[in-house]
Amino acid sequence: MVEKLWGSRFDTQPPKEFISFISGRDVTIKEGSDFRLVPYDVWGSRVHVIMLVEQSIISKEDGKALILGLREILNKWEKGEFKLEPEKEDVKLGMEKAGKLHTGRSRNDQITLDMILYLREESLVLLEKMLILIRSIVNQGKKGMRWVMPGFTHHQHASVTTFGHIFFSFAEALIRDCIRLEAWYRLFNRCPLGGAAGYGTSFPVDRKLTAELLAFDGPTENSLDPINNRWEPEAHIAFVFSAFMNHLSTIAQTLILMSTREFNMIRLDDRYSAGSSIMPQKRNPVGLEIIKAKAAYIAGALSTLLSIGQSLMVGYNRDTQWTKYIIMDIIDEVFSIPTILKGIIESLSVNRSAMELQCSSGFITAPALMEYIIQKWDLPFREGKILMEKAVKFSEKEGKERITLKGLKAASAETGIILNITEKEIEEFQQPSRIVSLLKIIGGPSETSMREELASLSRRIRSHKRWYVERRKSLKSARDLILKKEEEILSS
Amino acid sequence: MVEKLWGSRFDTQPPKEFISFISGRDVTIKEGSDFRLVPYDVWGSRVHVIMLVEQSIISKEDGKALILGLREILNKWEKGEFKLEPEKEDVKLGMEKAGKLHTGRSRNDQITLDMILYLREESLVLLEKMLILIRSIVNQGKKGMRWVMPGFTHHQHASVTTFGHIFFSFAEALIRDCIRLEAWYRLFNRCPLGGAAGYGTSFPVDRKLTAELLAFDGPTENSLDPINNRWEPEAHIAFVFSAFMNHLSTIAQTLILMSTREFNMIRLDDRYSAGSSIMPQKRNPVGLEIIKAKAAYIAGALSTLLSIGQSLMVGYNRDTQWTKYIIMDIIDEVFSIPTILKGIIESLSVNRSAMELQCSSGFITAPALMEYIIQKWDLPFREGKILMEKAVKFSEKEGKERITLKGLKAASAETGIILNITEKEIEEFQQPSRIVSLLKIIGGPSETSMREELASLSRRIRSHKRWYVERRKSLKSARDLILKKEEEILSS
Amino acid sequence: MVEKLWGSRFDTQPPKEFISFISGRDVTIKEGSDFRLVPYDVWGSRVHVIMLVEQSIISKEDGKALILGLREILNKWEKGEFKLEPEKEDVKLGMEKAGKLHTGRSRNDQITLDMILYLREESLVLLEKMLILIRSIVNQGKKGMRWVMPGFTHHQHASVTTFGHIFFSFAEALIRDCIRLEAWYRLFNRCPLGGAAGYGTSFPVDRKLTAELLAFDGPTENSLDPINNRWEPEAHIAFVFSAFMNHLSTIAQTLILMSTREFNMIRLDDRYSAGSSIMPQKRNPVGLEIIKAKAAYIAGALSTLLSIGQSLMVGYNRDTQWTKYIIMDIIDEVFSIPTILKGIIESLSVNRSAMELQCSSGFITAPALMEYIIQKWDLPFREGKILMEKAVKFSEKEGKERITLKGLKAASAETGIILNITEKEIEEFQQPSRIVSLLKIIGGPSETSMREELASLSRRIRSHKRWYVERRKSLKSARDLILKKEEEILSS
Amino acid sequence: MVEKLWGSRFDTQPPKEFISFISGRDVTIKEGSDFRLVPYDVWGSRVHVIMLVEQSIISKEDGKALILGLREILNKWEKGEFKLEPEKEDVKLGMEKAGKLHTGRSRNDQITLDMILYLREESLVLLEKMLILIRSIVNQGKKGMRWVMPGFTHHQHASVTTFGHIFFSFAEALIRDCIRLEAWYRLFNRCPLGGAAGYGTSFPVDRKLTAELLAFDGPTENSLDPINNRWEPEAHIAFVFSAFMNHLSTIAQTLILMSTREFNMIRLDDRYSAGSSIMPQKRNPVGLEIIKAKAAYIAGALSTLLSIGQSLMVGYNRDTQWTKYIIMDIIDEVFSIPTILKGIIESLSVNRSAMELQCSSGFITAPALMEYIIQKWDLPFREGKILMEKAVKFSEKEGKERITLKGLKAASAETGIILNITEKEIEEFQQPSRIVSLLKIIGGPSETSMREELASLSRRIRSHKRWYVERRKSLKSARDLILKKEEEILSS
Repeated sequence: MVEKLWGSRFDTQPPKEFISFISGRDVTIKEGSDFRLVPYDVWGSRVHVIMLVEQSIISKEDGKALILGLREILNKWEKGEFKLEPEKEDVKLGMEKAGKLHTGRSRNDQITLDMILYLREESLVLLEKMLILIRSIVNQGKKGMRWVMPGFTHHQHASVTTFGHIFFSFAEALIRDCIRLEAWYRLFNRCPLGGAAGYGTSFPVDRKLTAELLAFDGPTENSLDPINNRWEPEAHIAFVFSAFMNHLSTIAQTLILMSTREFNMIRLDDRYSAGSSIMPQKRNPVGLEIIKAKAAYIAGALSTLLSIGQSLMVGYNRDTQWTKYIIMDIIDEVFSIPTILKGIIESLSVNRSAMELQCSSGFITAPALMEYIIQKWDLPFREGKILMEKAVKFSEKEGKERITLKGLKAASAETGIILNITEKEIEEFQQPSRIVSLLKIIGGPSETSMREELASLSRRIRSHKRWYVERRKSLKSARDLILKKEEEILSS
Repeated sequence: MVEKLWGSRFDTQPPKEFISFISGRDVTIKEGSDFRLVPYDVWGSRVHVIMLVEQSIISKEDGKALILGLREILNKWEKGEFKLEPEKEDVKLGMEKAGKLHTGRSRNDQITLDMILYLREESLVLLEKMLILIRSIVNQGKKGMRWVMPGFTHHQHASVTTFGHIFFSFAEALIRDCIRLEAWYRLFNRCPLGGAAGYGTSFPVDRKLTAELLAFDGPTENSLDPINNRWEPEAHIAFVFSAFMNHLSTIAQTLILMSTREFNMIRLDDRYSAGSSIMPQKRNPVGLEIIKAKAAYIAGALSTLLSIGQSLMVGYNRDTQWTKYIIMDIIDEVFSIPTILKGIIESLSVNRSAMELQCSSGFITAPALMEYIIQKWDLPFREGKILMEKAVKFSEKEGKERITLKGLKAASAETGIILNITEKEIEEFQQPSRIVSLLKIIGGPSETSMREELASLSRRIRSHKRWYVERRKSLKSARDLILKKEEEILSS
Repeated sequence: MVEKLWGSRFDTQPPKEFISFISGRDVTIKEGSDFRLVPYDVWGSRVHVIMLVEQSIISKEDGKALILGLREILNKWEKGEFKLEPEKEDVKLGMEKAGKLHTGRSRNDQITLDMILYLREESLVLLEKMLILIRSIVNQGKKGMRWVMPGFTHHQHASVTTFGHIFFSFAEALIRDCIRLEAWYRLFNRCPLGGAAGYGTSFPVDRKLTAELLAFDGPTENSLDPINNRWEPEAHIAFVFSAFMNHLSTIAQTLILMSTREFNMIRLDDRYSAGSSIMPQKRNPVGLEIIKAKAAYIAGALSTLLSIGQSLMVGYNRDTQWTKYIIMDIIDEVFSIPTILKGIIESLSVNRSAMELQCSSGFITAPALMEYIIQKWDLPFREGKILMEKAVKFSEKEGKERITLKGLKAASAETGIILNITEKEIEEFQQPSRIVSLLKIIGGPSETSMREELASLSRRIRSHKRWYVERRKSLKSARDLILKKEEEILSS
Repeated sequence: MVEKLWGSRFDTQPPKEFISFISGRDVTIKEGSDFRLVPYDVWGSRVHVIMLVEQSIISKEDGKALILGLREILNKWEKGEFKLEPEKEDVKLGMEKAGKLHTGRSRNDQITLDMILYLREESLVLLEKMLILIRSIVNQGKKGMRWVMPGFTHHQHASVTTFGHIFFSFAEALIRDCIRLEAWYRLFNRCPLGGAAGYGTSFPVDRKLTAELLAFDGPTENSLDPINNRWEPEAHIAFVFSAFMNHLSTIAQTLILMSTREFNMIRLDDRYSAGSSIMPQKRNPVGLEIIKAKAAYIAGALSTLLSIGQSLMVGYNRDTQWTKYIIMDIIDEVFSIPTILKGIIESLSVNRSAMELQCSSGFITAPALMEYIIQKWDLPFREGKILMEKAVKFSEKEGKERITLKGLKAASAETGIILNITEKEIEEFQQPSRIVSLLKIIGGPSETSMREELASLSRRIRSHKRWYVERRKSLKSARDLILKKEEEILSS
């Protein structure tokens, strides 16, 4: 259960969505899964009716009645007045009176369609949220392009980098998640309608027409395939979210550690922490912890989806009904995360001096100095390394955690490698920001590199946004076409 | 979504619980997880109050007020009038006015206690259901002790066995599930209360007393351990259920196959099938299919629980809050299965003649005849085998799928192994029920063996039932003691 | 352990690869994982050397020595003479003498590169195998375009379809697996070299050049990103294989059931079954069972990969070393499957008459007849359904499992729906192949539909093959370029 | 691949087993799985032979030959001269000449027996290793009973505790793992031999005798049950190890964080770290990281085991052969961990002053002071809390991170709660070791509590050790009985 969150000391109140986020499913009531499918079911049914009329499978009169009936259901649903009843079995039975709706359609193609419409919509909604999150991460990275800090390996300091470089690395990973989500969309943007129970129908249904009216790239190439695989769009998108969540869990864990008293590199905002009124410095990173839990949740759910879809006999099996609940749970868990994480990231404050301080000890700058020496005096890598190891040893004896001129000279003497290096040079090339400026490789932490990456990131984000907008347009056009065709029927 | 289930042809209506079972979460509304914890939270709080009074940490007056307040909450909850509000954060805040309740207690030990109380109760409820299911399977097995049928390996006929033998094998596995559930109970029947946030309290709380009043075997031996591991009772019981579900999924798959038109060995009752009014023979084994899906579901959820509990820093982390939802989902999914499966099993009808017929072809009886010959004529195993292989070959040439006298004689001639076997013997030792009667090994399909196993099964089921009853008694006594102590406080 | 496989009765011997397939890891010796990385490591190192020389980071002389040394290692490896020693720590240390190889490179970018080169190659090899398998499935489907059989739902007969239709549905799913594999390739075809430990180097390494020489689409856009995510290409490709295996597991389960004595629809070839010399009809579908097990295996391994990549601190962590073993195990398990399954499918024999027989009972043809009647007499769907339900009831009373003229007339009388239907029509529209011919929807089982799908399938397979060939060409060109540049250095 | 591990600066060399541990499967060659089963297979076969002779199923002469042959195989195996060949299919075929060995036995009961014998042995070996590890953790805890440090929640300081308290919490969890392992042993210590392919045999095999000779608690109660469930002992023990690994992963993660430069609370020994010769303070906790990876590995493998065992048709299916490889992989991964972790824990050094320092800021001691005040002045909890919140606020204004007398007085004035508290009291009850001494609850961090827990831990460890020793004795006796009976046969 939710802890007492915000002691009286906290100045600002947490956003409502954050409270809801961290209270998880403690008090949330979850609707039956079919409830959210109503609009998709109505959408598909309207298209089916139009096609039945155009193919003269049912009369225009019947078509009119059905269109009006379906609109009424949708209307009720939008007002929150629509009720699902188990004995009525499902959404569609609200229309049972108008039995013709079932001509040339079976529950199998119907529910498969509902699910793909639902998932397609959610994929777009989440894509947009993800892009907003990425932009926010890139922004933080941009701000932090010159904030030096230790680059970690094994939780230990490995070399000098910048806050921005790390954030850019986060952004890159999330862009792959967008690419995956779009690839999912393209792969499954095919209409199953007309496949009936999987083996087709002798009614002359026009699968191309229904596919077009629903903004699909066409009908599925085989009527049975989507029925056999009523776990696959679900498992595939679950994998996309699972990879996404893994990326976020690493961001979360990194921020959790950076915000400990010991690291003291960042501070989460009051609004995004749970605290203690008695230990005012305590800032429990509960939002980030939950993100980690959700990453584990979604990977487990993916495992279920794959398992349900394993070793099934060909054709529909009720086992796959459960994929519906699982993917909806996944989407519910992922849904609010981008917004929350964006809030956390945008509101955190950075302790630049603490980060910089950590760049001045533990000989973290010695490797950079070594690279400088090797290049300037054209030493073989191996000699440079031996020289530096000895310099470390001598400098350490002085009680230092960075290379001293004296230490380096002693090393020089011992190895016989002659360097006319100055104190100034030694200082300069152990100066964190100077070091960073040398890391000019593509994708590296120098400002030069980061400015290039920033341009590239922005370009790519824009291009994904464009893709998103195009999808929305295409959906809009298809909806308009439905309305137009319905009006033709209604007014005939 | 649920299919149109029962065509007009079906004589009997399905039980309400079956309809609800197969409609899954289509239309079910799921309460927030804390709702079901209210009675456990109140229970733990009442015990905490008694202890606080007995230890003179709070006054009797305060104790009285708290006891009455807690009873009122419970009362409301039982009437369905209790509301949880996210802004009030959780169950316990209903009592915030009576802040003393939090003396010497933290949310960490409180929620950990709530969960173990909840899980302990559910484990008992499920244990009872499982025992009822096992009894029902044993009963079917008992009925089928003489119903011969093919014993399968690799989905192929391997030898002759009985329906009863197979059902007894199912029962054995389920008894192990009961043993595991009881072992879980014993392992975690320890009270975390008094551990506060994990690091204890300086209030002189009496952990032994609270443990006793809650029918635990004692307090946890370390205050931090249950906080570190707020995934472990959950994951362990999830494993128990996962193994149980695996067993049920094999029962389900076996019954699904046996009820196909092709196998035609059993027929599911109308009440437990979904059908088609146009294909009256069609009996969709939807209940069994769902059991399979749920087995996959629970294994995935176990995977999540283990994953959440991995690589956590010591002490409480909010990540583990999610274990609460996951284990509740698991319990919700398992809950109704034993009753449903019992209904399916008790109502199915068996096609004895179809099963028996399958025992007369494919040389399924040849191995038994071989064993007979080897023993009677004292042949080395190898020779017996060669003889029989040849007998098969010759009999097959006659167009038969069982050994003929002529075939055996030809084999005898070719191998030089002389047998004075008669037609009658050949018939007898290829007669399925005769063969089965010879399989007298412990745990085998002969009636002798099965009667022994039946006695053992009944004995073990009774013993588990006894264990269950004892636990119930011990819980009852502890509850009585609470009431007694509360009355003392109230009347003082 | 492997069973005694092939009794003396079997005429043909199983292919060697099948024996090895079904004996799994019983007797197989598995090399250390680095062994297979040697050629990739050498490949990457050669490119690194060329770049170091071109950037004047090392001298031409050093470059020459390194090139020759690397070629020697490869040479040894190809002859099987290369040894890995744990104390020498890894592949690369064979070159330690030539320490300059490590200039501007760290183990992190080196091993990340090795893995992506390895996975990229395996993805191509598997893609090619998958395409061959698909072609073989399409071929079987093509042969079976007119072989009528029951279309299953819930393991029960639902309607009439063809063997070919089912096989085409299998092919469609596998094509998606190819699409996914190619998408994986495109997403990860980026070179991590030059990123050093993740935070870059001050040596003026030319990341574009190394990327080009290794046939990548460019360097990774951020040096740290591939280090943070040393689980992601692994998990992503594991998902691709897991979905692929799920598809195969459904094919396997379907074939297992169809080959039971009870279904008796197909017969696995001797060479691809394990049998019994005493039960000659027994054909244990061990190859197919193993495919099912492997599907479960890979899904579990995916779960591990995702879990390892969860909640890691930024930067390299040794945890991710284990992803190397896991993805190699996955690839080892998947590797031989396409060839084996192709062998099974091409060699199985089909029992057309048994399949057709199953299409003549259980009123499996009644729905088709109903659709015919509704369309011909222009009945509302609901009326047609009631009529047919009654016709079923009356026909059943006659002891039939298909609609009779008498039964239909009785239904007609009872409902008042007048039809001037003839005996001939009733027969015709309950004739399985006639029914199938009416299922002319796109993607349906009619020959018309199947011919169209066949054309589309062939087109798509060719296009994937083309993509494969282009990748091979591009890899070849890049290799040629390496040789050319090496020669320049060697001859300078 | 393994990094260059130990720079020249490191004084001590890592233990060989640690090098091997961290190089994982980089260069390790893995034998075929049957290789390790040879001794178990021989063991079971010897017992089977004795029984066959005693039941007069085979002659004494045959018995003699078989016993001698089996001993020879074992002899060869022990010398490393035994070869497995795939075409000979498996271990047992080495004995094919002596075909009588297969009388009354099938491969199904044989391999099921092999596996349970193998797992039983490994469970004991691991139990012993686990007990040694626990003892070592308890020892560290004992040493650290008075080393104060922050108690963490959410990675943040929550209150004061001791190093010992945390280590004792680790030990408690690991004891549960031992209990689980023993429960597994008891549950599956049943002999499947005599069940043949699952459906028994007509040979008069004496299942009680073979069970006794193999130190089982008896034969399985049903011959088919162990065949149906050839995933269950595997999955169950995998769960036991998975829970164990989760516990270890938390220890690992906690130690990793405590050993960062930022936490600086512990320092891993040179021998158990990978380092850098240039950054001498860098101590990569690679051993601990690998433990985390292995926890993920085993959870995924468990998921595979459960998945393989799902929805199988009754009777043996080849799918379950894969459980053999998976459980062996699991055991290989777990095997060396206890020893390695013991080495890491025993050799780490603790920075007591750094830990203590962290207990003097962030108002970490305020809650304890509050508890003291509430108890001494008998305040209601709520009032005490408000008082302390204000005291924090005022003390913070002075720039302090602990309560000052002035701050408390100001709070007292503002709230009207009069306390005659002295500076000395305030200091005393904010003194970490004083605070800890008050946490006297059962299982708490005070020395009193810890001494009690220590006694209990020692008692329990001894009792588990005793259980282990008894199992070993019982196995020894059974082995002796085999030898005695064999001698009787050989000398007859």
